Amino acid sequence: MPSKQKTAVIAGVGPGLGASLCRAYAAEGYQVYALARSLKGAELGDGTRFIATDLTNEDSVRAAFQGIMAETGRVDSAVYNASGMVISEFKGLSSGEFEALWRVSTLGAFLFAQAALPSMADVGEGALLFTGATASIKGGANFAAFASAKFALRGLAQSLAREYGPKGIHVVHTLVDGIIWSDRARDKFGMTTETSMNPDAIAAAYLDMAHQHKSAWTHELDLRPYCEKF
Amino acid sequence: MPSKQKTAVIAGVGPGLGASLCRAYAAEGYQVYALARSLKGAELGDGTRFIATDLTNEDSVRAAFQGIMAETGRVDSAVYNASGMVISEFKGLSSGEFEALWRVSTLGAFLFAQAALPSMADVGEGALLFTGATASIKGGANFAAFASAKFALRGLAQSLAREYGPKGIHVVHTLVDGIIWSDRARDKFGMTTETSMNPDAIAAAYLDMAHQHKSAWTHELDLRPYCEKF
Amino acid sequence: MPSKQKTAVIAGVGPGLGASLCRAYAAEGYQVYALARSLKGAELGDGTRFIATDLTNEDSVRAAFQGIMAETGRVDSAVYNASGMVISEFKGLSSGEFEALWRVSTLGAFLFAQAALPSMADVGEGALLFTGATASIKGGANFAAFASAKFALRGLAQSLAREYGPKGIHVVHTLVDGIIWSDRARDKFGMTTETSMNPDAIAAAYLDMAHQHKSAWTHELDLRPYCEKF
Amino acid sequence: MPSKQKTAVIAGVGPGLGASLCRAYAAEGYQVYALARSLKGAELGDGTRFIATDLTNEDSVRAAFQGIMAETGRVDSAVYNASGMVISEFKGLSSGEFEALWRVSTLGAFLFAQAALPSMADVGEGALLFTGATASIKGGANFAAFASAKFALRGLAQSLAREYGPKGIHVVHTLVDGIIWSDRARDKFGMTTETSMNPDAIAAAYLDMAHQHKSAWTHELDLRPYCEKF
Repeated sequence: MPSKQKTAVIAGVGPGLGASLCRAYAAEGYQVYALARSLKGAELGDGTRFIATDLTNEDSVRAAFQGIMAETGRVDSAVYNASGMVISEFKGLSSGEFEALWRVSTLGAFLFAQAALPSMADVGEGALLFTGATASIKGGANFAAFASAKFALRGLAQSLAREYGPKGIHVVHTLVDGIIWSDRARDKFGMTTETSMNPDAIAAAYLDMAHQHKSAWTHELDLRPYCEKF
Repeated sequence: MPSKQKTAVIAGVGPGLGASLCRAYAAEGYQVYALARSLKGAELGDGTRFIATDLTNEDSVRAAFQGIMAETGRVDSAVYNASGMVISEFKGLSSGEFEALWRVSTLGAFLFAQAALPSMADVGEGALLFTGATASIKGGANFAAFASAKFALRGLAQSLAREYGPKGIHVVHTLVDGIIWSDRARDKFGMTTETSMNPDAIAAAYLDMAHQHKSAWTHELDLRPYCEKF
Repeated sequence: MPSKQKTAVIAGVGPGLGASLCRAYAAEGYQVYALARSLKGAELGDGTRFIATDLTNEDSVRAAFQGIMAETGRVDSAVYNASGMVISEFKGLSSGEFEALWRVSTLGAFLFAQAALPSMADVGEGALLFTGATASIKGGANFAAFASAKFALRGLAQSLAREYGPKGIHVVHTLVDGIIWSDRARDKFGMTTETSMNPDAIAAAYLDMAHQHKSAWTHELDLRPYCEKF
Repeated sequence: MPSKQKTAVIAGVGPGLGASLCRAYAAEGYQVYALARSLKGAELGDGTRFIATDLTNEDSVRAAFQGIMAETGRVDSAVYNASGMVISEFKGLSSGEFEALWRVSTLGAFLFAQAALPSMADVGEGALLFTGATASIKGGANFAAFASAKFALRGLAQSLAREYGPKGIHVVHTLVDGIIWSDRARDKFGMTTETSMNPDAIAAAYLDMAHQHKSAWTHELDLRPYCEKF
């Protein structure tokens, strides 16, 4: 019998948005599971259960969801937030890099959706969210690998929205159009808390999505700092 | 001295979304003003003040905002929700109809923004929201007038977002991609509460937008019923 | 009885693209008519007939097309190339400027389409082209009036394409995403022939569109110089 | 020393568009090379040289281009026209199918671009074209694999356009928004020559692109039959 407490599964939890998502869902009373290869120092907050998962490996992802279903019997929200990043002139970009980026950013999302959707479809509700980026809709110079992988994720998300929306499952694709605040954002890109995005604010927007009434669902949500050029 | 209570101004309040917006802002503690030519039976809820306004007339719109500023000294949220609608073969569409639709759907939004933005710019915060439609991004056959006016509104909203975002003002354009529930939606289009959009649910999404942290703002929000083809 | 020679009608002919369009159609053997308030020194080439027309005035536009039909009995290609341009902070933009720009850029296109389409629909073929700009799909800061008018034109063009395509009429919207070469482009924006767009090259692309086989029609054509950022 | 005759390389040549592209380029005087695993009965026309190539294999693609460069010393136009197609409920879609479709539709395009671009970059000119589809911009229900792969191709093409445009290389992405005429289209989808797209007409549009003046380049070209709903 499913738990009365709602369950959220977050894939991809470095110290940035992933950790904020775990804390935000927990604050709303969800039992939260974090899926990633390792925690890399992310502070997920009390109560979040970490499951070491290779998100590009079908068996590993399936096993993670089987474990969650065994414990809670339900998946209410599932967020695919994992992604790589390569910035490179096309000339110097290897096919291996191109493929590796697609594996973590797109194939992983496919495997995650395959594992998450059946239990949602059984009850006719749930929310499946994918984290996109500026590169999801704009392929900039030197972003061939990243744009291709992120475009691919968006196509997948759209198709799932059209297939699973009528089944009661809310599929959301976000466009995170800015740099998320982190020590690395500060050191590498000269970001401040004013010019970058607060991961807790982004996570709050995800929760808004997860809780929309099914009579007025958003499929694609752009998010950017107030001062961002776009 | 500005009131401590926040102020929301809603333009275009028939019995559908406009009334829900008034009630939703009021429920969040805002002093709400409704601007329209007449109320047409809309139930705005207690506390909402109605100001009879010709939204296509610059003096009328300006006077309404002057009255509001005199009373409260602030405008925190302003929503332009007025729109006409014409469905017609192009051949039978008169230039008068084409222009009238632009006046209420686009020029009115321009006048509303001109009146609402100065007080927001003075304090460096506020939210300005425009109600778009499917026709804002897709010009369908027989929708020449409506699509042209709604595309025009979207171009205006985008430009304002890029100019006023860095000044701390959140400009949002919604894409209401479905039919809002009403007696007319039922009688004319055969809608049910299941296939149409609940105006209170849409209004809740507007409030989410108005309350987003400025580090993660959405500019364009699509909204549709779970079962809608898109 | 219609002339054996094809007819092209070009609205909006300053020294830039309009004149190139006249010359390009003439070079392909069309009888060309140029509609504008005045020629402003444009060199239209031999054979092009100029009809002084107020493009924002319904009677004037209708009279121009009646004259053309009386002479040739056919309109094969019609290009609406007229547009104004205002760059201004929103604060300093008057409603009069906002409306005037819409009149020449959008309403004029509506009137032109109303006058051009009936004779095309009678024979079930013809090409109707509209000149768009970067601002047709992106509302930049300080472009509120221009973006709104150009978005509106695009919505109109899309709707016409969907309504008239199945009737055999090819409706095309171009996105001229760059600055067209002219003395003014050089003096005002520092353009060179290398960084700006050759109007003859743009006109050649319009001709390609007008001559596409109806089994493979383009509705929206973006055009930019090879070195343009986009 | 490079040949005086221009060279075109077409990847993906079944009996449909690929063969038409070969014939169209040949008719314009190009030396044409067709790259595919096999010809499947495609009539490429006299003069086209077939090189058996596994387009998803880096060494195979590289060898094909090395052979071409050894023979002609130049690549003027290169078209990646290969693609798979899977229509399936998401539930029944295996990760193997998802990946295989990406390999032929996206990774192959990456390998092709890597092999084609260096010789173009050396001379600062050339045209690189990719064949997209409706699914490149719209992820429909049951098209998760195809849409994801085609979105990915579009992201790649955009990025290359922005990187290589300023280097004089014209990168074009087409949106073939309709069903191309073939015996299979007739038998499987009930298409007629009236409702489907003539591959020769599509090929003509590709040639128009390849020959655009670099002062007015198109990056994305939509193509559909006149009667197509869109």
